[in-house]
Amino acid sequence: MPRYRLTVEYDGSPFVGWQRQANGPSVQAAIEAAILAFSGEAVTVFGAGRTDAGVHAEGQVAHVDLARDWRAERLAAALNAHLRDHPIAVLAAARAADDFHCRFSAVGRHYLYRILNRRAPPALDRGRVWWVRAPLDAEAMHRAAQGLVGHHDFTTFRSSDCQAASAMKTLDRLDVVRAGLHVAIRASARSFLHNQVRSMAGSLKLVGEGKWSAADVARALAARDRTACGPVAPPEGLCLLAVDYPGDALTPR
Amino acid sequence: MPRYRLTVEYDGSPFVGWQRQANGPSVQAAIEAAILAFSGEAVTVFGAGRTDAGVHAEGQVAHVDLARDWRAERLAAALNAHLRDHPIAVLAAARAADDFHCRFSAVGRHYLYRILNRRAPPALDRGRVWWVRAPLDAEAMHRAAQGLVGHHDFTTFRSSDCQAASAMKTLDRLDVVRAGLHVAIRASARSFLHNQVRSMAGSLKLVGEGKWSAADVARALAARDRTACGPVAPPEGLCLLAVDYPGDALTPR
Repeated sequence: MPRYRLTVEYDGSPFVGWQRQANGPSVQAAIEAAILAFSGEAVTVFGAGRTDAGVHAEGQVAHVDLARDWRAERLAAALNAHLRDHPIAVLAAARAADDFHCRFSAVGRHYLYRILNRRAPPALDRGRVWWVRAPLDAEAMHRAAQGLVGHHDFTTFRSSDCQAASAMKTLDRLDVVRAGLHVAIRASARSFLHNQVRSMAGSLKLVGEGKWSAADVARALAARDRTACGPVAPPEGLCLLAVDYPGDALTPR
Repeated sequence: MPRYRLTVEYDGSPFVGWQRQANGPSVQAAIEAAILAFSGEAVTVFGAGRTDAGVHAEGQVAHVDLARDWRAERLAAALNAHLRDHPIAVLAAARAADDFHCRFSAVGRHYLYRILNRRAPPALDRGRVWWVRAPLDAEAMHRAAQGLVGHHDFTTFRSSDCQAASAMKTLDRLDVVRAGLHVAIRASARSFLHNQVRSMAGSLKLVGEGKWSAADVARALAARDRTACGPVAPPEGLCLLAVDYPGDALTPR
């Protein structure tokens, strides 16, 4: 059966997350339903990143095996037609090698965490940003973030539900940049632990407010203790930007 | 009674427009209800631009007279608390001169019209952009747009419902710029006719597709005939960015 790779954008607000769950609509189930509607096939769609409820994606990558040989462009158009009622768009579809696995073949993941830093609540950015009223020192956040870059045990910054066998990860990039009233945190790694980006964002926000120092962040990392983490940042600020695979052009960031 | 000037951001999707109407919720009515809820006063809130249903604002300006003397910051915070259930945020409140009128005192209005130009429909930008599949030549659109800049009779580019006494307007700026898959049209003028920006955007889209030339746009303008206009662009791509008043710092664009 031919394998297809899909690049998917979605607004995570109405979903319980990427993954199919009993308690509500998921992105995965919506795409599977769209495939069933146009091809008659009941399939499982795999995703590179199992984004939580409320988390968005500009470039989630999925793969699926279909019985028929579809022209990639036709496949994307048909899926989008059947996804019309959902804030999900298939940006690209392509034939993939039989051994391509969107999750296990990935060599890089890029996330953006967005903070709206002003007194007034978000209106146009509602559900897309973390609203933080206190003025944040983005440069201090960036400096503190550099203490998290590299190969570390990220036990402090992972959910207690995280199922990864090891908490050792290599964080390639953690940049904090202010643009007007927005503070953007960009994180890149081969892979992340569950809630890792939101956990790091929550602790960096404390630095931005002046409640934590860069040394506090370093100490939290060294503690390898979940209780040393700052409050986890809410899901709506997070967006999966892109996933990299061997042989792809590098994601320009 | 002290007069207050409000700067307001909103997502126009759930509203029938700025103006109170019998057929559904309006931004104006929501703000008036918020004022009633916190001050007990039934007032009329005036707006600088009467945006249509589905049109957004980053910087709508409103004014209102209130019986009491409120600290401006307290007023904004109270309004935002009472507007919690709506995608409306009061970005700033300030005391204004008694003769300040948000609509009649305005000396400049700045609009942004956003097009998402790709095959896949919008997911994250749903309701915020005009989705145009055919590849657009933004440079050709920009060149054609320059034929509309200046002092002209814009009869071709105004709604047949437009109530302005004269169709003579001075368009100060009409820039078209591509940024990746987005094409942005920026329009600035002292004031606009009803549907003027959307009418111009709709005709420029024809230029971008190669269906119209710059000369066709100039001919449409010269015709001073509504039927010479291209199809009007949909409301969701439009956003009122800012309104200028004498004595304000100039809007940086």
